[in-house]
Amino acid sequence: MTKAVGVGLLGFGTVGSGVVEIIQRHQNELQHKVGCPVEVKKILVRDVNKQRKVEVNRSILTEVASDVIYDPEVDIIVEVMGGIEDTKLQLIEALNQKKHVVTANKDLMALHGAELLKVAAENQCDLFYEASVAGGIPILKGLSDGLSADRITKMMGIVNGTTNYILTKMTQEGSSYEEVLSQAQELGFAESDPTADVEGLDAARKMAILATLGFSVKVQLDDVSVRGISSVSDADLHYSHQLGYTMKLIGLAQRDEDRIEVSVQPTLLPHHHPLSSVHNEYNAVYVYGEAVGETMFYGPGAGSLPTATAAMSDLVQVIRNMRLGVNGKTVQEPLHERVLKEDKEIESQYFIRLKVVDRAGTFSTITSLFAEYEVSFEKLLQLPIEGEEAAEVIIITHKTNKENYQLLINRLNELAVVHSLESSYRVEGGQ
Amino acid sequence: MTKAVGVGLLGFGTVGSGVVEIIQRHQNELQHKVGCPVEVKKILVRDVNKQRKVEVNRSILTEVASDVIYDPEVDIIVEVMGGIEDTKLQLIEALNQKKHVVTANKDLMALHGAELLKVAAENQCDLFYEASVAGGIPILKGLSDGLSADRITKMMGIVNGTTNYILTKMTQEGSSYEEVLSQAQELGFAESDPTADVEGLDAARKMAILATLGFSVKVQLDDVSVRGISSVSDADLHYSHQLGYTMKLIGLAQRDEDRIEVSVQPTLLPHHHPLSSVHNEYNAVYVYGEAVGETMFYGPGAGSLPTATAAMSDLVQVIRNMRLGVNGKTVQEPLHERVLKEDKEIESQYFIRLKVVDRAGTFSTITSLFAEYEVSFEKLLQLPIEGEEAAEVIIITHKTNKENYQLLINRLNELAVVHSLESSYRVEGGQ
Repeated sequence: MTKAVGVGLLGFGTVGSGVVEIIQRHQNELQHKVGCPVEVKKILVRDVNKQRKVEVNRSILTEVASDVIYDPEVDIIVEVMGGIEDTKLQLIEALNQKKHVVTANKDLMALHGAELLKVAAENQCDLFYEASVAGGIPILKGLSDGLSADRITKMMGIVNGTTNYILTKMTQEGSSYEEVLSQAQELGFAESDPTADVEGLDAARKMAILATLGFSVKVQLDDVSVRGISSVSDADLHYSHQLGYTMKLIGLAQRDEDRIEVSVQPTLLPHHHPLSSVHNEYNAVYVYGEAVGETMFYGPGAGSLPTATAAMSDLVQVIRNMRLGVNGKTVQEPLHERVLKEDKEIESQYFIRLKVVDRAGTFSTITSLFAEYEVSFEKLLQLPIEGEEAAEVIIITHKTNKENYQLLINRLNELAVVHSLESSYRVEGGQ
Repeated sequence: MTKAVGVGLLGFGTVGSGVVEIIQRHQNELQHKVGCPVEVKKILVRDVNKQRKVEVNRSILTEVASDVIYDPEVDIIVEVMGGIEDTKLQLIEALNQKKHVVTANKDLMALHGAELLKVAAENQCDLFYEASVAGGIPILKGLSDGLSADRITKMMGIVNGTTNYILTKMTQEGSSYEEVLSQAQELGFAESDPTADVEGLDAARKMAILATLGFSVKVQLDDVSVRGISSVSDADLHYSHQLGYTMKLIGLAQRDEDRIEVSVQPTLLPHHHPLSSVHNEYNAVYVYGEAVGETMFYGPGAGSLPTATAAMSDLVQVIRNMRLGVNGKTVQEPLHERVLKEDKEIESQYFIRLKVVDRAGTFSTITSLFAEYEVSFEKLLQLPIEGEEAAEVIIITHKTNKENYQLLINRLNELAVVHSLESSYRVEGGQ
């Protein structure tokens, strides 16, 4: 029997337990795939005395990270504890000790991925991070292997399960954001402090990772323009639906020639768009490649076993590489410097909802302003507001650039016939 | 500059042209990915004088296969010409000449995949076939890499674009099978002889390949039970829809413990199932893994550039392996012998449509027969047939095994109160 490969875990929470469970439960299949036994040798935990769901020999638990990092029997470190700066230092030390690293840490990879990959390459070590984006969906392998020969020009992702759950429920039940959020918190689909999810930061981190890999450019977290879902109203969802659109929190990464745009924002998609059928806590990444056309990867975005599966697929890859003697050779430095698009280069359609004075001439005032900025209408809906001398106007524009759109929006707000600009959203997947 | 890798093509039709086009158009990105130039050295064609869309130097065209196979400058053969027995002999000779092989040939892989993989392994050559299943969808890499650590228990695939196009149009337009088929033929979505597509044989070949890889068992084409869509009526689609189901031609591969079932048949799925939203000529493969849960891979199932992209991703993998010196080492012999389930072990729900005599007692006769075979109803719809002394009865059963279902169906046909058994289909994705 070939010598066992030793695995050390940093963290033993939901994902860590999943990894250990899969290694135990699928040991036979694993051995068949990699040609040698795989053994968990050391696990960093907060409290060695805590009761745990997954059974492991007490002697392999430790509360000291260096016990894992310097353990000579540990060949591969699986980092599933989270954290940024301290974790980064520990992983750099692990790589310098010639340990391969598998991480599920999106925060770390979004902020320090480039640096860590460099250290890995210097040490001829693998550093894989499939589990950091979209849980159980093998999207990073899809981009780097499956679509490797294509030129990816657009990615749209539903990469945050909490917000997709909230928007799905709001749409299906007609409930308000606040109601659904508190339900989601009770059911465990939203954190008690949901800020990172609902304000789009979590999705932004994942999009920075996806754009870097998919476009082979260095995308920083600051490059991602972010808007969350906390201001989305049930009325917005209602009118979107009526006009043939589904609202999703969409992470968008797009490139034209070598200029890119990365954003996260509530976005309207036509009902027939593949992403519109992605419900509840599920994630999906829609990829447009010049040659392949439209593809989509769908699956669970979080959860113990799905995320653990992604980490395990990385682990299998590391072990295969070890047995072939080719670790650290597939790390690729991004090919292009990133050049961000300016607002006037960012083209899209928009949904605009206005509350206007309900009297003759209102409409012509509004339309002449749109004409001034060369923004034309694709769809239009006007409804009286009961009991008020006002009407609601909902517009889906044709494509326009973001600069014109911003100027238009500012001017709309100043018009005397406009009571208020209720909301506006980007529209994708049309035309 | 590192020495160029030489590619030889067997075939220069739609897919072959796509491969050459991608190699020409994305040469820069390709070089970045594999670290050396990639050059097309020789192409086998039927007629060297034919006009072609993609421009190549006339001198690399040949009408003799051995010119490609024995060309010392050719390192990798890309087989995109189709054919079975002759093609097999040529590829075996190529492998014996230490040429790596990339093929898009599902017929060949479904029938002789095991033998070819063995010859490849003996010669330390790679043999990849991503393009043989579901065109542009990287499903084989998803199974062998992305979900490598998981235990796959179920795969459901819409793996034939022609039949999905026909069923989509029949559902959307309420047209008959014959009408839509002839439209599809005019538009080029169906062949002039559509038998292999509409009778499910094409899908069966792909499911044999998927099941072999996903379950690591040796599945033969004969193991796949096959039923096509030519007998599907617009009434079936209408009633399915009314009861909350979408009809798709589903390739199903399922295992319980080590017993498997592989089939291709028109199947009803609940509207909310991810596969129900896969329209027109698109393909998708839904995969259920014990750890990951539900995932789905969606994309174009055919077409020049999508299929070429899949072949290209294999080509990139071969070249990376060449540069690492690890070709032929990732070929895996299936782990398990295949044991097929018996009918009594195959459990599912069914849709049954009957034309019955419209008089008192009919219903109780039918229900007592169902009770005899322990088949219970989940949904029921009864409608009078205008101008006849008859009624239409549509039943969705709860889960039952295939043996009982077959016995029940035979007995139903014999009942005096049943004019005819109009149709019956498997139902998946419920309960």
